[in-house]
Amino acid sequence: MIQSNIAMIGLGVMGKSLALNLLDNGFNVTGFDISQQNRERANEEGKQLSTQPSKGRLHIVENLTELLESLENPRVIALSVPAGEIVDSVIEDLRSAGLSREDIVIDTGNSLWTDSERREQQFSGQLRFFSTAVSGGEVGARTGPSLMASGDREAWNYVKPMWEAIAAKVDAKGLPVAQFESGDACAAYLGRAGAGHYVKMVHNGIEYADMQLICEAYHFMSSALNMPAHEIGDVFEAWNQGVLNSYLMEISADILRTDDPVTGRPFVEIVLDKAGQKGTGLWTAVDALQQGAPAPTIAQAVFARAQSSQKETRGLASSVFKSEPNSDTELDKASLLAELHDALYCSKLTVYAQGFDLLKTTSDKEEWALDFANISKIWRAGCIIRAIFLQDITHAYQENKQLENLLLDPKFVEQLNNRSLGWRGCIAKAALTGVPVPAMSSALSYFDGLRSAVVPANLLQAQRDYFGSHSYARIDEPEEARYHLTWSREQKQQISV
Amino acid sequence: MIQSNIAMIGLGVMGKSLALNLLDNGFNVTGFDISQQNRERANEEGKQLSTQPSKGRLHIVENLTELLESLENPRVIALSVPAGEIVDSVIEDLRSAGLSREDIVIDTGNSLWTDSERREQQFSGQLRFFSTAVSGGEVGARTGPSLMASGDREAWNYVKPMWEAIAAKVDAKGLPVAQFESGDACAAYLGRAGAGHYVKMVHNGIEYADMQLICEAYHFMSSALNMPAHEIGDVFEAWNQGVLNSYLMEISADILRTDDPVTGRPFVEIVLDKAGQKGTGLWTAVDALQQGAPAPTIAQAVFARAQSSQKETRGLASSVFKSEPNSDTELDKASLLAELHDALYCSKLTVYAQGFDLLKTTSDKEEWALDFANISKIWRAGCIIRAIFLQDITHAYQENKQLENLLLDPKFVEQLNNRSLGWRGCIAKAALTGVPVPAMSSALSYFDGLRSAVVPANLLQAQRDYFGSHSYARIDEPEEARYHLTWSREQKQQISV
Repeated sequence: MIQSNIAMIGLGVMGKSLALNLLDNGFNVTGFDISQQNRERANEEGKQLSTQPSKGRLHIVENLTELLESLENPRVIALSVPAGEIVDSVIEDLRSAGLSREDIVIDTGNSLWTDSERREQQFSGQLRFFSTAVSGGEVGARTGPSLMASGDREAWNYVKPMWEAIAAKVDAKGLPVAQFESGDACAAYLGRAGAGHYVKMVHNGIEYADMQLICEAYHFMSSALNMPAHEIGDVFEAWNQGVLNSYLMEISADILRTDDPVTGRPFVEIVLDKAGQKGTGLWTAVDALQQGAPAPTIAQAVFARAQSSQKETRGLASSVFKSEPNSDTELDKASLLAELHDALYCSKLTVYAQGFDLLKTTSDKEEWALDFANISKIWRAGCIIRAIFLQDITHAYQENKQLENLLLDPKFVEQLNNRSLGWRGCIAKAALTGVPVPAMSSALSYFDGLRSAVVPANLLQAQRDYFGSHSYARIDEPEEARYHLTWSREQKQQISV
Repeated sequence: MIQSNIAMIGLGVMGKSLALNLLDNGFNVTGFDISQQNRERANEEGKQLSTQPSKGRLHIVENLTELLESLENPRVIALSVPAGEIVDSVIEDLRSAGLSREDIVIDTGNSLWTDSERREQQFSGQLRFFSTAVSGGEVGARTGPSLMASGDREAWNYVKPMWEAIAAKVDAKGLPVAQFESGDACAAYLGRAGAGHYVKMVHNGIEYADMQLICEAYHFMSSALNMPAHEIGDVFEAWNQGVLNSYLMEISADILRTDDPVTGRPFVEIVLDKAGQKGTGLWTAVDALQQGAPAPTIAQAVFARAQSSQKETRGLASSVFKSEPNSDTELDKASLLAELHDALYCSKLTVYAQGFDLLKTTSDKEEWALDFANISKIWRAGCIIRAIFLQDITHAYQENKQLENLLLDPKFVEQLNNRSLGWRGCIAKAALTGVPVPAMSSALSYFDGLRSAVVPANLLQAQRDYFGSHSYARIDEPEEARYHLTWSREQKQQISV
């Protein structure tokens, strides 16, 4: 019997797709799933694929003992099971079945990064725990995902050839190239076990905000400019040829030009406007709050989804409040679209800046030494937020590893200086015409806050000292020197505290 | 020996102030603190107070056994100790010293509400656990705080006379009246143990946003209108006479008209613009995200503090980005100030709407049946966010207990319809002149989102179905019916899932 190179436990949508991708690249895979249906479906597709030349072979097993016997040493076992306790129980089952301390277990699910950190510690000495966050959905997993790997450093040497083979590839210009061609692979080792899942979580936070920004641009066009869905799709299609080129822009253009097969109306208009979420965007916003890293636009995107779910209340409100005061104002469509384009570009850039700032904060705290050029490199293809300007971000961090904030890269400074006027105009028009743009306007506020050498937190510190004796620091003394003012006295005095 | 009515464990700033307030109202108090200095200081101040007629007596003890012996039955023991494990260990010490199951232990600290919930369960049958969140800082605790009580229902009967006596009072118009006069007391029983601390947490979240809004108004005047600090203080003082009347407005006016005793410059200009936080605003924002209740403006306030702490990066950024493009535009000061006034009022109202919506969401989930009229009533005086318009909020919830959103109260609808034009103008000017107004603009986006019968979450759901097969609901079918579109096919089909 041929020994397999890797096993995949869990043959649902993602696990099966990754397994077939491995076969495509000539690796032999052992597959297991507790569901017989999943085993049979994978077996069928695997057999079909194996008939083609140079493909690997899929060996479906019935239990974990068979699975361990089918693998070459050290065994490499990937898990594609629901995040949470199931990951732990499968690992325990593997240990009972005879896993050795040299064997490598890779969690490819959407685990909470702190669980990955905990598992690395917990299983240390018993097995080599490794984690690889996968982005790209079903199609990505099947044809080339973005792989954020982390965990046992030596395990990476065994995993690397497989991960680089199945990952998405980009050419020297940062453009995606077809599978099997040469090019940079969107797979990288990022650090200790929690790092990969953390980076993926922030990726998803950026994704939430990116989607919300595109939705706001659509809302602005449909509401303030009365443009029909198809025409908005055409604008997105045109924008997708330039600096805004991205997967999300591409699919949004496609969606807006699609008609509902049932009614024939523009598809988007028959979809219920209540958004769901899977939690990772929420995790990112919560984490940013807890780390003290400003990521307001990501939080706005999560809250916009929450507000969308209050549809009944929105219906009531829409009937009692005056309609937007300036909707009858004559607006120059061409110039407004140009402003909207720049607003979208600048906002998107700002969201990435917030995401990378959060990565930096946590990397420093956890001592991961994350390589931001590497991260932006593997986001250039395969994942949901893949976009042409990730090449620019890669360059920014290659030029300056210590960049304090992504927006301070000289190329982005130039872009913002050229485009911020349009951004400002767009936010002003949205405010006047009553179109909600929570993400775009929060991005502008973030940018203007960043540009402010002095923000009004001085008044805030004085307020806190006034009502709670929380003390303040002075601009003309070291920050460590703290004072309190005797606010209640006629002749106020400064007291050192 | 006279038996005391209540004991206070922890005689720091808050515990001592509450104890003296109890003496003022004729109650006898036993005091204990592990710090000898705190015991002695409280003893001194207590003795001085007791010489006055009709005051209670402060009896300082050296240990918990003495403390228990000094109290009438059932014993009522208030804790004013740091939140966290110390609360649990003091309760265990009390039990070892002979606490009975009829005795009442009241946590008055800034505990996390889930800890209070857990303690209520844990100590059930061993003692009567009660919690009372206190707002108003040192001065409030000493002369009349706002008291958010919750826990054992029967314990409330023992606690109520004391809490109502020491709490702040308001007259029939909702205006604060001096202590000892008649009036509604700002103390209320809110529900099971977690409820009081939860309500206090949301109070602090609102406080964070309220402070940030005032700071943004200050920044707008100083930056876009070049007004000196004293003049801004005069504007705040004038605003404090009308609908914006509030404690925070009052102290902000005072702060802005105060000069630094060291340099003679306006005080606010020598304070370092890096804001700290104690966590409760952060907890509120995190909780809102986790509950799926939109409270974007509270989160923006927390993130604004986080961005203020990145002072070095802000300094760098201020030197590379073009200054705001329209700062040379002629602005009409009087009309801009009128717009800013309305922006501040509408934003503030929106923040309260977000806070009460969060309370409603959690109350439903936890089955607390919170009484929102009661909550706004006890916030009318004593606490940091006390403001004239809490009387309007009280009326709104008295008129309609089931109000879906505070902004939908007829009086507030009228206010918003009258004032939203100014709000819009102000946000537009801030965007064009480059003044960061994260909280004010997020409040406007929230309002415009609420006013939108249709938000662009339809496109978002389509995107999610496109890349992740997450499915969508239709506007022309029940929400439970979920579909997927076969996006990759030339002839797209709708599949029921």
